[in-house]
Amino acid sequence: MVSMRAPQVERDESLPARIRIHEVGARDGLQNEKSVVPTEVKAEFIRRLATSGLQTIETTSFVNPQWVPQLADAADLLAMLGDEGRGPDRPVLVPNERGLDRALEAGVGAVAIFGSATETFARKNLNRTVAESIEMFRPVVTRSLDAGLTVRAYVSMCFGDPWEGPVPIGQVADVCVALMDLGAHELSLGDTIGVGTPGHVRALLAELDLRGVARAATAVHFHDTYGQALANTLTALREGVTIVDSSAGGLGGCPYAESATGNLATEDLVWALEGAGVETGIDLESLVATSTWMAAQLGRPSPSRVVTALR
Amino acid sequence: MVSMRAPQVERDESLPARIRIHEVGARDGLQNEKSVVPTEVKAEFIRRLATSGLQTIETTSFVNPQWVPQLADAADLLAMLGDEGRGPDRPVLVPNERGLDRALEAGVGAVAIFGSATETFARKNLNRTVAESIEMFRPVVTRSLDAGLTVRAYVSMCFGDPWEGPVPIGQVADVCVALMDLGAHELSLGDTIGVGTPGHVRALLAELDLRGVARAATAVHFHDTYGQALANTLTALREGVTIVDSSAGGLGGCPYAESATGNLATEDLVWALEGAGVETGIDLESLVATSTWMAAQLGRPSPSRVVTALR
Repeated sequence: MVSMRAPQVERDESLPARIRIHEVGARDGLQNEKSVVPTEVKAEFIRRLATSGLQTIETTSFVNPQWVPQLADAADLLAMLGDEGRGPDRPVLVPNERGLDRALEAGVGAVAIFGSATETFARKNLNRTVAESIEMFRPVVTRSLDAGLTVRAYVSMCFGDPWEGPVPIGQVADVCVALMDLGAHELSLGDTIGVGTPGHVRALLAELDLRGVARAATAVHFHDTYGQALANTLTALREGVTIVDSSAGGLGGCPYAESATGNLATEDLVWALEGAGVETGIDLESLVATSTWMAAQLGRPSPSRVVTALR
Repeated sequence: MVSMRAPQVERDESLPARIRIHEVGARDGLQNEKSVVPTEVKAEFIRRLATSGLQTIETTSFVNPQWVPQLADAADLLAMLGDEGRGPDRPVLVPNERGLDRALEAGVGAVAIFGSATETFARKNLNRTVAESIEMFRPVVTRSLDAGLTVRAYVSMCFGDPWEGPVPIGQVADVCVALMDLGAHELSLGDTIGVGTPGHVRALLAELDLRGVARAATAVHFHDTYGQALANTLTALREGVTIVDSSAGGLGGCPYAESATGNLATEDLVWALEGAGVETGIDLESLVATSTWMAAQLGRPSPSRVVTALR
């Protein structure tokens, strides 16, 4: 007999009663896969994720198709999804104004920008200094707000950077504050290379408190490269964070960190939360079936421990 | 540049300043591998683990060779290791008096017994009821103490059982208390099928407090089947536990749970502890090299995230 659900004891009062999962598999996951997934498969993946109970699903990125050919079909995907791919719970990533133009044309209801806490990654990923990237984002945020869209601001390399090593907390907080000051509704703290540990998570959140960043607007985004993603996420939840990024089946990774494994697997997070009596609204069996199906599409097993155990 | 160490912020005061790792790879790991590893390779593995800074290394099991052919060479292994394989920091598992006889003959300095929190697993693993198994262990513990050995008591299926589902905490505590009452020095709480979650860990530890089991004598032993091992371990450490079982490279698993993955990987634990400023005495690079070498001996990759990232 394989357990289909974590044993329940009593509600774990150290965690929030309810959290919201921001599912990034279709964007952060698929953009880091070697193979290009057909648009129909992406649409089916997103529909299945919604059926499994995921409320917020980041669908794609309007990045330059030359940089990320995996997501070159962003407009086609949204057209295929129709209403299922639009609205405030279906954000898309927009790297710059050109991306925003395309996203607006596609009728999106929410966007996300992707900043960097370090100069090296800003230069490699955005071809700009951190300060220049903030200025690049300014009109993107302003125009998005004018169009009635919600805006999420990712901050990458919040804990370590593959070129610079550990990243000073004050430097991360500066970027977070600058992006929120542009008018973003939500911040997502990314451990892009997966090196952070729980004390580091608490220290960064404490610094953001001091700097006036609202905890209710702060999400966390961990990669499992060093096996720390779930422990870090639960630490953030104990510090009052209620929005967590994860990817179904643990899809994804960082193209610049050769050894990077994927995002925190949504299933592994849901297992922990169900054991704690935290509401997610997700049907784990259905989600495992979706990730198993997606792994078959990609021709390789899911890195999620729960998917491996339950598939 | 691949990070060789977790970024350090400041010491994480929620964790103990120092912990002791009880390395189980050579026993719990190898007994669950399909292939039988040559005795020379096991000896080399144990020597390398010691060189990497692991203080307590469980070397083997004096179980009936018909049940666990992987460890049939227990006596030969200890003879080969000489003084490096004996003493209070080199425990061996003894299932019963016959096993103890063989262990005493081999000159061991420490033993471990292996109890069950559930009737079904006691019957399948020990061919006895839980109560009968306690009586079977009584002379094993008494004779071990008389011989000047330290005695560790494993309790398996502390969180869930593959046949019985969730295991009531009171039932687990009964077995823990009974084994400690026999005279065991140390208790190891095993989540044999990896289903537990952090709130469950805290609830069990709280019950053991009420029942008078000393926290200083309590170890935790998590398997990563559902991705919860590190989160659960850190939770236990925050509750004052200072002894953690883990296996180098994440070797091991449960032969009765088809989908079981291995123990918590020692490397993933050390990464978390180094980030928190907790002393372990372990050289992570050396340990990763050892696990990489052992994975090559076994002809398959290590399931440890840190080994995968750093190898």
